Amino acid sequence: MKLESSFAHAAKQYRAIFFDAYGVLRNSSGVIAGVPGVLARLKSEGIDAYIITNDASKSPDMMQKYYVHPELGELFAIEKIVSSGMLASEFLSAKVAPGGKVAYLGKPASAYYVHQAGLEAVPVDEFSSTNPEEIRALVWLDDEGFDWFTGLNQTLNLLRKINIPVIIANTDTSYPVKSGEVAVAVGGLAKMIEGLVGKTFIRFGKPDTQIFSFAFARALESMPDLKKSEILMIGDTLHTDILGANQFGIDTALVLSGNTQKEKARMQIRSTGIIPTYLFDSILT
Amino acid sequence: MKLESSFAHAAKQYRAIFFDAYGVLRNSSGVIAGVPGVLARLKSEGIDAYIITNDASKSPDMMQKYYVHPELGELFAIEKIVSSGMLASEFLSAKVAPGGKVAYLGKPASAYYVHQAGLEAVPVDEFSSTNPEEIRALVWLDDEGFDWFTGLNQTLNLLRKINIPVIIANTDTSYPVKSGEVAVAVGGLAKMIEGLVGKTFIRFGKPDTQIFSFAFARALESMPDLKKSEILMIGDTLHTDILGANQFGIDTALVLSGNTQKEKARMQIRSTGIIPTYLFDSILT
Amino acid sequence: MKLESSFAHAAKQYRAIFFDAYGVLRNSSGVIAGVPGVLARLKSEGIDAYIITNDASKSPDMMQKYYVHPELGELFAIEKIVSSGMLASEFLSAKVAPGGKVAYLGKPASAYYVHQAGLEAVPVDEFSSTNPEEIRALVWLDDEGFDWFTGLNQTLNLLRKINIPVIIANTDTSYPVKSGEVAVAVGGLAKMIEGLVGKTFIRFGKPDTQIFSFAFARALESMPDLKKSEILMIGDTLHTDILGANQFGIDTALVLSGNTQKEKARMQIRSTGIIPTYLFDSILT
Amino acid sequence: MKLESSFAHAAKQYRAIFFDAYGVLRNSSGVIAGVPGVLARLKSEGIDAYIITNDASKSPDMMQKYYVHPELGELFAIEKIVSSGMLASEFLSAKVAPGGKVAYLGKPASAYYVHQAGLEAVPVDEFSSTNPEEIRALVWLDDEGFDWFTGLNQTLNLLRKINIPVIIANTDTSYPVKSGEVAVAVGGLAKMIEGLVGKTFIRFGKPDTQIFSFAFARALESMPDLKKSEILMIGDTLHTDILGANQFGIDTALVLSGNTQKEKARMQIRSTGIIPTYLFDSILT
Repeated sequence: MKLESSFAHAAKQYRAIFFDAYGVLRNSSGVIAGVPGVLARLKSEGIDAYIITNDASKSPDMMQKYYVHPELGELFAIEKIVSSGMLASEFLSAKVAPGGKVAYLGKPASAYYVHQAGLEAVPVDEFSSTNPEEIRALVWLDDEGFDWFTGLNQTLNLLRKINIPVIIANTDTSYPVKSGEVAVAVGGLAKMIEGLVGKTFIRFGKPDTQIFSFAFARALESMPDLKKSEILMIGDTLHTDILGANQFGIDTALVLSGNTQKEKARMQIRSTGIIPTYLFDSILT
Repeated sequence: MKLESSFAHAAKQYRAIFFDAYGVLRNSSGVIAGVPGVLARLKSEGIDAYIITNDASKSPDMMQKYYVHPELGELFAIEKIVSSGMLASEFLSAKVAPGGKVAYLGKPASAYYVHQAGLEAVPVDEFSSTNPEEIRALVWLDDEGFDWFTGLNQTLNLLRKINIPVIIANTDTSYPVKSGEVAVAVGGLAKMIEGLVGKTFIRFGKPDTQIFSFAFARALESMPDLKKSEILMIGDTLHTDILGANQFGIDTALVLSGNTQKEKARMQIRSTGIIPTYLFDSILT
Repeated sequence: MKLESSFAHAAKQYRAIFFDAYGVLRNSSGVIAGVPGVLARLKSEGIDAYIITNDASKSPDMMQKYYVHPELGELFAIEKIVSSGMLASEFLSAKVAPGGKVAYLGKPASAYYVHQAGLEAVPVDEFSSTNPEEIRALVWLDDEGFDWFTGLNQTLNLLRKINIPVIIANTDTSYPVKSGEVAVAVGGLAKMIEGLVGKTFIRFGKPDTQIFSFAFARALESMPDLKKSEILMIGDTLHTDILGANQFGIDTALVLSGNTQKEKARMQIRSTGIIPTYLFDSILT
Repeated sequence: MKLESSFAHAAKQYRAIFFDAYGVLRNSSGVIAGVPGVLARLKSEGIDAYIITNDASKSPDMMQKYYVHPELGELFAIEKIVSSGMLASEFLSAKVAPGGKVAYLGKPASAYYVHQAGLEAVPVDEFSSTNPEEIRALVWLDDEGFDWFTGLNQTLNLLRKINIPVIIANTDTSYPVKSGEVAVAVGGLAKMIEGLVGKTFIRFGKPDTQIFSFAFARALESMPDLKKSEILMIGDTLHTDILGANQFGIDTALVLSGNTQKEKARMQIRSTGIIPTYLFDSILT
């Protein structure tokens, strides 16, 4: 690991910063105090900021609304937000469209990613009234929006009956909800059902490098000469943010404002072998 | 595998038969027609019949009531029924009792196995009103009897807070419910939460050999000179009934009246390497 | 799956074909008879052919020499060959270089991928005479070139002592060697040691999509307007070639000239849920 | 966990002590200084001592020779030594004998466990000259005694050709060799090959409770009224000794003279949820 006094200092060596959202920019109480100021400063220094998030529960438009500065307005242009849901949507578009029904698990807002691909979204409580033969794919978007007992058992039986691509649009298995508490995420539920049906689901989101490729392609549109060595990924989780960005070949910084506890960080880096380029308390330093 | 024309013929070579319940003696419609006659015949031949079942959802008394012959009355004496719940209860008795509270997931009837150990059973919807420090163990008994979303998330957080033994009283991950359909079993839910908390739960039930040791000890009480080579285990599932009984060192018969489909049986024996001593269509032959 | 009479006919709908090497173009006896003719025909039709291979045992130059046509000469230009070793090399170049020692497992020819990154390659039998503190990374390249007992135990202990990035340059766990026989591949050995040290290794090769991103970027250099929908991946293995290319969003064809047996192909597609766009006996049809 | 000042004091509450061998009684330098004295003292107090070891590399007779007191002579009668190899031998005897060939991996001394079952032992380097159809079972006994490259690849191909029971006679995946260093154990090698052939091997040894049932049955021979609550298991490893004995329902003590480091013990108990009854520095206290 490199020694750097602060994020502020390290950031100056890069042309683009990829931010994980939860635990870096936001927490369960909303945007972390001081973060809008940091983003404004990066802007003034000509450093491009992107969000790279494992989230398929809402559209980028809805995510954009979280990050507003009293004076500067929206802090992220819509094209600077990359979610794992967008990769799932791209998959549906390339491999399932045009036309057809896609079964999904999640709240109605998450169906955005099915509609984006020009497909009809069938929620889990309409499975029983839908002809299984018409369903072209199934996608796991959000852990809320359905009754788990009914929904998971119906999904299990649907997947035993028909052979369709199954997409996990957010591979996280748990997520923080309020101080110290966590909740089972949609990726955790999907993994359980995957084991029970014995099939191989298609996974989108960090640590898989595809989301980084997607974001890099976006960044190249505005900075055609951008090199990987000019990008820094900031995340609060070794096994997703840091592992994936390391594999993609860009520099990484672990921050201690979310999932990773300060007193355990160095021990976890040593025991997992997932080594970030930098280690900062938060991006506020 | 040995060639035997029928279960009826093979059975004569043994002094005790261990039966899996579901898929062998019963199915979703109740006791399989003809089974009471088979059990009556074994009795008349002096062959002892036992039930060895992965079930912690109800007491042996309740299980006993399924198997009644119009003339002979109850087909299994209560001491001939061995459930995985009984092993969980024995564990609680040896390692947690005397006194104290045990959190459980399942219907009220499943709490029998906590009460048997002389302990107080706290259902999942009372977790939040119970002092976590008072809870001495947690036990997974049944997939029904609680709201999955609330119950699983509360369990996940309880286990992050306190360090107690966690017991899976039925390791099955799914079970058949009606023709062709299956449901997620309590063992499947427990495995998901085990992965999320990163702890090691204690598992009871086939294929672990402990349930066979327990049943063998029971059988020795009435037949002190019984040898393992005089016992035959009958089951419908390779990965639980046959694997476990093979490892325990007794003869095994796979029947095709439940989980294992006739046309796939030989292929599955070949691909898993789990080889029964006999293969029969059912115990009715 | 789409019905197409033959590979020859299907291929005409694409501008680029990505070929897996082993089981598609070659087998243990060398290049499959008829393959050079197929490649020559594609060339004449203006369809670009690429090799996408999980192989880190030799350089692209050495791979190129396998595919020579008596009249046309080399069938693949060097830039049309993409190996998982190249991704490992790119990682070393981006995250470990400049300068330093990299420990490796494999034959001397596989060290090419370390040298390409401008780093010094230390074979496993020189581990003991090297100062562990000087080793910047370890890379699994090939299952041959070292004594397994000594080499694997030394690797296990090295990784317990120092915390460095560990790279699996070929994730395959086994590979075919001669009619019907297989061998443990370097990815299988690496997975065993990964479990024993409890660390997370960095994996390159199909089904991870990074190798497809790499190849697509290569293809864009000569065809800047190429779209993903104009590419077809041909492979003989569902869990690597087809799964990865599906996830990357390109069309896929499973051929039955290698790992997947003809009589089991449809059953395996059904049981795994990994669904190719096409199914052909071989590329010779 | 209960607070007890010392092993010496706690031991007085039990009638039988089950000892793990490696890390408790012995280490890589031989029997730990002071241990013979402890064993002599237990004897004088009328407390029975047993060895419960995951070891299939040598016969109990050979193990017995390690524990000799200058005055008292042999510290363990042969019937007080229980190895996982003995369970494998019992399995072969019950399920494979009489007669036939059993393929094995290990040094010649480990073949003892095949011979004990009245079967012919075929070492891995004679696989190729043996008719596969004659081999009735394969057993993993020891990580030494064969060339890994040749032996593991031959085993892999043998198991793809014929469908026989495969037995892992020691489930440990690594073992300590000299100060701080470890080696891949036979259970680690077996697990890799099990994954590659996709079959289910039969495992003997802690944490599986079968070895405790076996030892308990032995103890009942000399103490017919012995209860489980009168037995204490002492081990240096949470995931084998403590987990298995807890599940078997007997009291447990973790000692810090082997695998578990003193400064990490309490953290590991908390993070794994495997909770011993006592925690001692060693049995010398």
